[in-house]
Amino acid sequence: MSFRNACYHILAPASEAHEYKKSSKLFDMLLIVLIIVNVGAMMLETVPGIPAILKHELHVIEVVSVLIFTIEYVLRVYSCASGPNRPASQATTPWQKRWAYIKSPMALVDLMAILPFYLSIFVAFDLRILRVFRVLRILKIGRYSRSMQTLITVLRNESHSLIAAISVLLLFTVIAATCIYYIEHTAQPNVFSSIPASLWWALVTLTTVGYGDAVPVTALGKVFGGLITIMGICFYALPAGILSSSYTTQMQLKRDRFKDTVRSVLDDGELSKRDVHHLEHVRALLDLDEEEAKLIVRLLQHHHKSLDK
Amino acid sequence: MSFRNACYHILAPASEAHEYKKSSKLFDMLLIVLIIVNVGAMMLETVPGIPAILKHELHVIEVVSVLIFTIEYVLRVYSCASGPNRPASQATTPWQKRWAYIKSPMALVDLMAILPFYLSIFVAFDLRILRVFRVLRILKIGRYSRSMQTLITVLRNESHSLIAAISVLLLFTVIAATCIYYIEHTAQPNVFSSIPASLWWALVTLTTVGYGDAVPVTALGKVFGGLITIMGICFYALPAGILSSSYTTQMQLKRDRFKDTVRSVLDDGELSKRDVHHLEHVRALLDLDEEEAKLIVRLLQHHHKSLDK
Amino acid sequence: MSFRNACYHILAPASEAHEYKKSSKLFDMLLIVLIIVNVGAMMLETVPGIPAILKHELHVIEVVSVLIFTIEYVLRVYSCASGPNRPASQATTPWQKRWAYIKSPMALVDLMAILPFYLSIFVAFDLRILRVFRVLRILKIGRYSRSMQTLITVLRNESHSLIAAISVLLLFTVIAATCIYYIEHTAQPNVFSSIPASLWWALVTLTTVGYGDAVPVTALGKVFGGLITIMGICFYALPAGILSSSYTTQMQLKRDRFKDTVRSVLDDGELSKRDVHHLEHVRALLDLDEEEAKLIVRLLQHHHKSLDK
Amino acid sequence: MSFRNACYHILAPASEAHEYKKSSKLFDMLLIVLIIVNVGAMMLETVPGIPAILKHELHVIEVVSVLIFTIEYVLRVYSCASGPNRPASQATTPWQKRWAYIKSPMALVDLMAILPFYLSIFVAFDLRILRVFRVLRILKIGRYSRSMQTLITVLRNESHSLIAAISVLLLFTVIAATCIYYIEHTAQPNVFSSIPASLWWALVTLTTVGYGDAVPVTALGKVFGGLITIMGICFYALPAGILSSSYTTQMQLKRDRFKDTVRSVLDDGELSKRDVHHLEHVRALLDLDEEEAKLIVRLLQHHHKSLDK
Repeated sequence: MSFRNACYHILAPASEAHEYKKSSKLFDMLLIVLIIVNVGAMMLETVPGIPAILKHELHVIEVVSVLIFTIEYVLRVYSCASGPNRPASQATTPWQKRWAYIKSPMALVDLMAILPFYLSIFVAFDLRILRVFRVLRILKIGRYSRSMQTLITVLRNESHSLIAAISVLLLFTVIAATCIYYIEHTAQPNVFSSIPASLWWALVTLTTVGYGDAVPVTALGKVFGGLITIMGICFYALPAGILSSSYTTQMQLKRDRFKDTVRSVLDDGELSKRDVHHLEHVRALLDLDEEEAKLIVRLLQHHHKSLDK
Repeated sequence: MSFRNACYHILAPASEAHEYKKSSKLFDMLLIVLIIVNVGAMMLETVPGIPAILKHELHVIEVVSVLIFTIEYVLRVYSCASGPNRPASQATTPWQKRWAYIKSPMALVDLMAILPFYLSIFVAFDLRILRVFRVLRILKIGRYSRSMQTLITVLRNESHSLIAAISVLLLFTVIAATCIYYIEHTAQPNVFSSIPASLWWALVTLTTVGYGDAVPVTALGKVFGGLITIMGICFYALPAGILSSSYTTQMQLKRDRFKDTVRSVLDDGELSKRDVHHLEHVRALLDLDEEEAKLIVRLLQHHHKSLDK
Repeated sequence: MSFRNACYHILAPASEAHEYKKSSKLFDMLLIVLIIVNVGAMMLETVPGIPAILKHELHVIEVVSVLIFTIEYVLRVYSCASGPNRPASQATTPWQKRWAYIKSPMALVDLMAILPFYLSIFVAFDLRILRVFRVLRILKIGRYSRSMQTLITVLRNESHSLIAAISVLLLFTVIAATCIYYIEHTAQPNVFSSIPASLWWALVTLTTVGYGDAVPVTALGKVFGGLITIMGICFYALPAGILSSSYTTQMQLKRDRFKDTVRSVLDDGELSKRDVHHLEHVRALLDLDEEEAKLIVRLLQHHHKSLDK
Repeated sequence: MSFRNACYHILAPASEAHEYKKSSKLFDMLLIVLIIVNVGAMMLETVPGIPAILKHELHVIEVVSVLIFTIEYVLRVYSCASGPNRPASQATTPWQKRWAYIKSPMALVDLMAILPFYLSIFVAFDLRILRVFRVLRILKIGRYSRSMQTLITVLRNESHSLIAAISVLLLFTVIAATCIYYIEHTAQPNVFSSIPASLWWALVTLTTVGYGDAVPVTALGKVFGGLITIMGICFYALPAGILSSSYTTQMQLKRDRFKDTVRSVLDDGELSKRDVHHLEHVRALLDLDEEEAKLIVRLLQHHHKSLDK
C-alpha cells in the first residue's frame, strides 16, 4: 500500500470508506482533543491577567495546532486522489479530484480553520475571531456518529418548515415591536426609544427568554405584553412540533426499511440461520430496538403464513 | 390575450391559476422587497435623529410604495373578473365577481395596507401605527410556499385545541394571581398592588418568560411561585404536544394519499414507465421524502403480489 | 313535561342528556358571562381606589351572582332526580339520587362557589380568596367542548407519566439547590442563605423561568449553573414529549375507531347511501378530518376488494 | 422460610421477585418517608437560626436514619444470596453473589447514602454535601412504578440523540460567546470581560433561561443576541422532538406487542373465555388503554375472518 493510500485510509470519512476504521477513529479522537485544547487556549487568551502569565504557552499551542491542521489539510488534499471515482463528477485525474475536494464544503471548513493564522501575518486587521469557527470541525468529525446523522437529517428535511416558522415569528416580532412602541414610548422613552429598539423586547418576549431589561410598565402595555407572552408559547411549540414529527417519521422510515428487508427475506420460504444473521446486521445498521425488530419479524411471519393458507 | 387576462395571470394566486408562474413569482418577490423596504422605513422614522436627516427620503419611499400598492390593488380588483366562475358563489358578472373579491379576507389585508395613507389626509388622528400591518402582506404572499401551507393547515386544524389550552392557561393565571396577591401583598404592596397587577406576574411565570420585575419574596410566596413554575412547564408542553401531533397527522395523511395513488396504479397490473412518472409527480407534489416513497411502493408491490398468489 | 323535568333538561350536562340542547347551551353561555363578570368584580375590588368609588356596584354584582349561583345549585340538586338511574349506583329514590349528586366532584365545585359567601356571614375569618375558585366553574362548563374533552383525556391518561417527570424534576431541584448552596453561600450569603432558599434558584432555573433575582456569581457557580440550565431543557422536553405522544395516540385511536366502523359497514357488501350517511355521522362525532376519512374509506374498500378476488 | 429468605422477599426488587409484594411496598413507602425526613432535616440544618434551636433533634434524625439505612444495607447484602442464580454471571456461592451485588450500581447508591456519615468520623474534611445524594434512593425505589420505567427507558434509548443535541448546543454556545465578546467587550468590559465569562450569557440565552444579569447593550450586540434567542428556540425544540418521538415509539411498541399476543391467540380459532382473560392480563401489564385494546382485538378478528373466507 502506497503512502498516499495509507493516508487516504486514515483520513477518509466513514461514509466513503466501507467502514469507520479503528485508525481513523483514533485519529479523529486526537483531532477533537486538539481542537478543544486550541479553542480553550483561544478563550483563555481573553481572560484578563492570563495572557501576561501564559503568553508563551498559548502561542505554542496556537502554532503547533495550526501546524498539525495544515499538515492534515495538505495530506487530505494530496490523498483524496486515492478515493473512488464518483460517477456523477467528471473529476478523474488526481488533480481534478483534488480541486473538487478543495471546493467541497467539508474542506472549506478545514481551510477556514487554518487560513486566519496565515492571513494575520500579512493583514493588519485582527482576524482572531475567525479562529472560533475551528469548533465547527468537531461537528464535521462528529458527523459520523449515528445520532448526529439523524439530527442533521432531521434538521435538513425540516429546514423549510423551520424557516417558515421563524419567518412568521419575525413578522409578529415586527408587529409586536410597533405596537409596544406606540403604547410604551411616552412612559419609558429611554427603553422603548424607537421601533428598532422595541424589536429587542418583542424578540426576547416571543422567544420567552425574558431578560427583564425592557419591560412594559403601563397597564395597556402589560395587557399587550401578556398577549405576546401567550403567542410566544405557540411560536415556541411550532419548532418542537416540526422536529418531533420529523423524528417520528425517521423512526417510521427505519421500521419500514426493516419491514422491507424482512419481507424480501421471508419471500423465499423459511427463515434460515443466515437470514437471521442478515436481519440482525440490518437491525444494528438501522439502530433499531432489538425487541421492536423481533416483534416486526414475528408479525410479518404470521402475516406470511396466514396468506399461504 | 387581453390586458385584463395578462394582469390576471401575473397577479393570480397560485391556488387559482394552475401553476405558480415565473412572472407571478418574480412579481411577488418584488412585492416582498417593497414591503420590507417600506416597513423598514416606517421603523427608521421613529429612531431619534433619523427623521431630521432622512425626512425627504422616507416620505418618498412611503408615497411611492403606497402608489404601487394602490395600482396593484386596483388591477387586482379589475382583473379578478377574468378568474373562473366559482360554482358555490352566485357571482357571475364581472362586477359581482369584483365585489366578492373586495370582500375576501385577502383583499381586505391589501386594502388595510393602503387605506391608512389616504385616511390620514382627511383624519387628524394619527393612523401611522396601522402601517405595520403591511407586513401581513408578506404572509399573504408566503402562503404559496408549501411549508407555510402546512404550517397554516396545522394551526387551523388545531385552533380549537390551542384555544382550549390557552383558556385553561388563562383560568390558572387568574387563580395564581389571586393567590399570590393575598400572599405577597403585605410584603410588596407596590409590586403586587392588586389582583389585576398580579396577573402580570402570573402570566409571565406560567409562560416561563420570567422578566424578574415582579418576584415573590416571602417564603410562602416562593413555595407557591415554585408550584406555578412547574405548572408553567405543563402549560408549555400542551401546545407543543398539540402541534406535534398535528404535524405527525399531516405526514401520515401525505403517506396515505401516496399509498392510495400507488394502489390505484398497481391495480391495473404492472408498474409501467408512465406510472412511475405519475408516482414521481405525486410524490413531488406531496413533498414526500424520495426514500420513503420508494419503500411505500416496494411494500405495496409486495403486498399486491402475495395477494395474487 | 313537569317543572322538574324542564329544569333537568336545561341544566343537564351534555354527556347525560343525549345531545347538548340549544337551551342548555344558552344557559351555559349566560353562566360563563356571569362568572367572568363576578371574577372581574372580585379583581377590581383589590385595585386601590376602586372600592371607594364602586363599592355599591361591586357589592350588588357579588350578591346577585351568588343568588343566581345558589338558585342554580338548588335547582340542580332538585332536578337531578329526573336523571336516568345509573346501573352502577344503588341510588334509585329521588333523595338518594340527590345525595349522590351532591357528593359528585362537579357539584362540590358548584358548592364551593357559593359557600364562602354564606360562611363569611358567620365566620370572622376572611374567606374572600376562595371566591377565585369560581373560575373553575368555567372549566366545568367548557368540558362539553370536544377540544377540552381531548385535553382532559390526554392529561388524565398521562397523569402518571407527568407526575413521574415532575418527581424527577423535584429530586434534581433538591440536588441542585444543595450543590449551589455550598458553592455560592460564601460569595452571596444573602441570596443563597440556606438550602431551602437555594431551592428557589434551582426551580426557577430548571423550569427555565430565570427571573434573575438569584444568579450565581462565582466561576464554579456559573459552570454548575450552566449545567443546570442544560438539564432544564431536558426536563422541559419531557412533558412536551409525553403530551405529544398522548395526543398522537388519541389521533390514532380516532382513526382506528373510524376504520372499525368502515370495516363493519363494508362487510355486508357495497357502500349504500345510508352507509355513507352513517360514516359521515361517525366522522363528525370523532372530529376527524374529511380528507383523512375519505382516504381511510378508499384504502379499506380497495383492501376489501383485493381480498374478495 | 428462613430469616434470610424472609429478608430477601421483603427487600427484593420487584423485577427480581415475581411480583411487587405488599410487604415490600410498605417497606419501600416507609423508606421514602425516612429519606424525605432525612433530606428535609439536612436542608433545615443550613437555615440560619435553626441549628441553634433544633440541634439535638436534627442530630437524632441523622443518626437514626443512618442506622436504619445501614441495617437495611447489611440485610440486603446478607439476603441477596437467596436470590436466583443469574445465568450470565458466574456468581454461585453466597459470597460471590454478595460481592456481585455490592458492585452493582443500585447497591453503590445505597452505600453512598451511608458512607459519608462514617467517613466524617475519621476524616476532617466536610462531606455533608454528599448526604444530598440520598434523594437518589427515592429514584431507585420509584423505579418500580411503570411510568418511571417508561421514562427511564425513553431517556436511555435516546441518550445518544440527547448527547448529540447537547453537543451541538455547546458548540454553538462557544461560537456565540466568542462573537458576543468581540461585539460587547468594549461597551461592557465588566459583564463580557472574557470569552469564558461570555459563555454564561450564551448558555443562559440559548437555553432561554434569560436571567438578565448579562444583556447586550450595543445595537450590533442586540441584533446578534436576537439571532441567538431564535436559535435557542430550535435547540429547545430538539430534545422535545427526540423525547416525543421516543415516547410515541414506546406506545407503538406496546401496541405491537399486544397485536402479537392477539394474533397468537386468534390463531387457534375462536376467542375463548380464557383467551379474553389472558388478553386482559397482557393489556394491564402493558398499561394499554382499554378502548384501544378492544379496537385492536376487533380489527384483528375482522382481518382474520376475511382471510379465512
